[in-house]
Amino acid sequence: MCRWAAYLGEEVFLEDIVSAPCHSLIAQSHCAQEAKSATNGDGFGLAWYGDRPEPGLYRDILPAWSDPNLKSLCRQIKSSLFLAHVRAATGGGTSRANCHPFVSGRWSFMHNGQISGFERIRRRLEAAVCDTLYDQRQGTTDSELFFLLMLEEGLDADPQVAVARAARRVIEASEAVGMAASFKLTAAFSDGENLFAVRYATDAQAPTLYTREGATGRCIVSEPFDREGESWQAVPPSSFVTMTRQGMTVCPFEPAVAQLAMAG
Amino acid sequence: MCRWAAYLGEEVFLEDIVSAPCHSLIAQSHCAQEAKSATNGDGFGLAWYGDRPEPGLYRDILPAWSDPNLKSLCRQIKSSLFLAHVRAATGGGTSRANCHPFVSGRWSFMHNGQISGFERIRRRLEAAVCDTLYDQRQGTTDSELFFLLMLEEGLDADPQVAVARAARRVIEASEAVGMAASFKLTAAFSDGENLFAVRYATDAQAPTLYTREGATGRCIVSEPFDREGESWQAVPPSSFVTMTRQGMTVCPFEPAVAQLAMAG
Amino acid sequence: MCRWAAYLGEEVFLEDIVSAPCHSLIAQSHCAQEAKSATNGDGFGLAWYGDRPEPGLYRDILPAWSDPNLKSLCRQIKSSLFLAHVRAATGGGTSRANCHPFVSGRWSFMHNGQISGFERIRRRLEAAVCDTLYDQRQGTTDSELFFLLMLEEGLDADPQVAVARAARRVIEASEAVGMAASFKLTAAFSDGENLFAVRYATDAQAPTLYTREGATGRCIVSEPFDREGESWQAVPPSSFVTMTRQGMTVCPFEPAVAQLAMAG
Amino acid sequence: MCRWAAYLGEEVFLEDIVSAPCHSLIAQSHCAQEAKSATNGDGFGLAWYGDRPEPGLYRDILPAWSDPNLKSLCRQIKSSLFLAHVRAATGGGTSRANCHPFVSGRWSFMHNGQISGFERIRRRLEAAVCDTLYDQRQGTTDSELFFLLMLEEGLDADPQVAVARAARRVIEASEAVGMAASFKLTAAFSDGENLFAVRYATDAQAPTLYTREGATGRCIVSEPFDREGESWQAVPPSSFVTMTRQGMTVCPFEPAVAQLAMAG
Repeated sequence: MCRWAAYLGEEVFLEDIVSAPCHSLIAQSHCAQEAKSATNGDGFGLAWYGDRPEPGLYRDILPAWSDPNLKSLCRQIKSSLFLAHVRAATGGGTSRANCHPFVSGRWSFMHNGQISGFERIRRRLEAAVCDTLYDQRQGTTDSELFFLLMLEEGLDADPQVAVARAARRVIEASEAVGMAASFKLTAAFSDGENLFAVRYATDAQAPTLYTREGATGRCIVSEPFDREGESWQAVPPSSFVTMTRQGMTVCPFEPAVAQLAMAG
Repeated sequence: MCRWAAYLGEEVFLEDIVSAPCHSLIAQSHCAQEAKSATNGDGFGLAWYGDRPEPGLYRDILPAWSDPNLKSLCRQIKSSLFLAHVRAATGGGTSRANCHPFVSGRWSFMHNGQISGFERIRRRLEAAVCDTLYDQRQGTTDSELFFLLMLEEGLDADPQVAVARAARRVIEASEAVGMAASFKLTAAFSDGENLFAVRYATDAQAPTLYTREGATGRCIVSEPFDREGESWQAVPPSSFVTMTRQGMTVCPFEPAVAQLAMAG
Repeated sequence: MCRWAAYLGEEVFLEDIVSAPCHSLIAQSHCAQEAKSATNGDGFGLAWYGDRPEPGLYRDILPAWSDPNLKSLCRQIKSSLFLAHVRAATGGGTSRANCHPFVSGRWSFMHNGQISGFERIRRRLEAAVCDTLYDQRQGTTDSELFFLLMLEEGLDADPQVAVARAARRVIEASEAVGMAASFKLTAAFSDGENLFAVRYATDAQAPTLYTREGATGRCIVSEPFDREGESWQAVPPSSFVTMTRQGMTVCPFEPAVAQLAMAG
Repeated sequence: MCRWAAYLGEEVFLEDIVSAPCHSLIAQSHCAQEAKSATNGDGFGLAWYGDRPEPGLYRDILPAWSDPNLKSLCRQIKSSLFLAHVRAATGGGTSRANCHPFVSGRWSFMHNGQISGFERIRRRLEAAVCDTLYDQRQGTTDSELFFLLMLEEGLDADPQVAVARAARRVIEASEAVGMAASFKLTAAFSDGENLFAVRYATDAQAPTLYTREGATGRCIVSEPFDREGESWQAVPPSSFVTMTRQGMTVCPFEPAVAQLAMAG
């Protein structure tokens, strides 16, 4: 289980969200309060949008609390849309390629959660991705592969549908090997314009998700980074969140219903 | 293209082979003389056998010349059978998981060479490996996958046959996508008892391979690490080398002939 | 505050002490129980003696729990005398040069504790070390400097006296700048033959220290790594421990009394 | 010996200078043409100015050619004033703290060159720096210490005088231990407004320095990164360069003449 935070709004220094608040993401790397594991020390990552359609990406394998580069980058870089993540590995070694966010073209993605029994369905899921997307796979995590499945399922065309179909892929792959699907998905992603998030689990324990309307913009996080002042809204399980520069909507989310003809 | 060295004989300090000679592997990381690229600075690795059937493994992404841990380990550790490698990446990012040697059970493997057009046949080759072996895949290189193919093709039963069949897999996969197979394979590997090596290419440019009978044991290397004193023997292209504690044999090597029924 | 363990006895695999026990040092890197900070994720180190008078040294900046090299080295290397350390930085950035153990010639040293107000007396203490020793300084920690002070004060001649004099240096330097000396020192060190440890603080809160007589040898640790079976002995504050292959003695320890003519 | 490049002008993507040109700094990390060593693979660093008076700093120990973070940062970050450096270590281990640029407050500094016999005068030079500056020392290089000497000698008040006095310190320290001073200094530094550089050596072999007036701004480099199109001007030895947004001046540079009362 990991911790993450994302922001959309007026341009701010990354540190205003990532490192300055009292219970900032970097503080959470040391002692998260709502996570399965208090320590999220298996690397970190930043994806931020600037003057290009594609985000910048900075990931490393040190704990976030001890990386001076991260501190300096967050202090120096301003952005109006960014994603930040600290990792507690559940599978896949500690390597840069296994750190979130993952990036493909203008899309960025980060995840808190896990596909249980991933080792039994990994090849089946990988087979569902086209060659071009598969060539982008750098690491070995379930999270990166889920992102590629989202892209495969039409992320550009309809983000919620793409996630719903990717989730369906996971469930069907589990069923195909005779496992009960067990899957936790609290994720945020962006196309450089809007910010999306999903909170879902196959059981009743979907990892937490919170939003906040702040003075300069909107945040969506796995765990509030500031206990005072502005108020955080808990997002209910089985929700899909769409944040634009104009506002925010929260819709019910479920995996897509079974498809008659599966390519995988 | 990379540089590597392997040793079988009386127990010696690793540094006697890896770092002490005038043109040692660590020196070759800075300025190799017979390699396509003089600099082999994209990580390194050691696999050495001791009191267990399985080798120890130390890999990191720094250039070999600048890692103080490597120097200290080579100075302190004694072994009668070990493999050492410095990497010049041809594909696959610089990460520990992409550094050689690769290890599986008691087997270790390292490679100088390349499967050209790998991105077009990677999935086809991965499909030829059973689930259990595929779960061991940590990185994204052609070399690691070739090692898994060797294991799949019966490395325990007959090393030369396994390599020949794995090479056939690569050639057939290339042909299946309409590419002329282009494949360079100068590799060493061990089961903890004996040391094996192969020199092969689909064209006339198989990367160099040399052996030496020394005072304390036998070496097999991609490039001599010592220009004086003891003499090095060049191994001809299309050869398979078997080193035991008793002696050394060099046999002709060719990929296996086409099989009628391919599983992949 | 850090966690560490040292062993002297029959040759064993490092993992028997470092990673295998239920509350092993690697487990303590994640959740120590008697330390000021539960997480000791700011790097780690090993110094082990083998066939040379000088120890091998392996240090890196990842958390111990996530380094596959550490796991493999501990599984493969056997030694009859070694020191292992996991770091929770109190001062000095996260770098290999700031990780313990520190090594000089045949001596190795590791430390749990802190010199408070170090930044005010660092130059004064550095000035007390001769040029030759000062050239060995690679990092910026108080611990490394204390080790150099011990060497300066005659570690080869009399370990306890050397530590007592080095501690006196710290106290006098504090007094010289008008600070009350505040200094915690729970350290272990070795010359490749015997294993020494000290538990001391200028206040009543000297960090914990335990010894154990085991089946294959003696351990001395900052915190027991095994709650069952063999019994651990707490070492009282202000003690100096000498472990040889024949036995163990615990003596009272106090900093040396003020010297009339101090060079520093 | 290292390679570096600095830019002052209109805001551009860092990659326009650092990674895109045919003989870019990143290309020079692999095969520099005018340096003592062709490979500059012992780490790298960036300091860039943005919306704050202080620069952002990104340094790491991988070779520049293999760091995906560096590539992404250079692609994403725009700046009108920045310094970039690739290192070939002459002394001081490969660590982040030994990578250039060095930063203090609004000042940044990077260096190609070397103080010969540094180990004999290091303590003497460190003694010339006040406690506050000394506390900023993170590494062990001659370059970082020279930067602190510049700050000590009044960098804020008069950059050229400060460098001249710092150089005098080095020469006097050498003479004090009976060495002929041997010192190479091709360095660039900035206060966030202007860009300064110096080319000097105690012998006739001062490392090269070039300037260019380009379409969007001025560059100063250790070696041209683009052989075509716009023309590079070689700066003669014993020169001090001041680049402002309005123009550039090149003055003669010599170390300050001996001072009657030296504190060090």
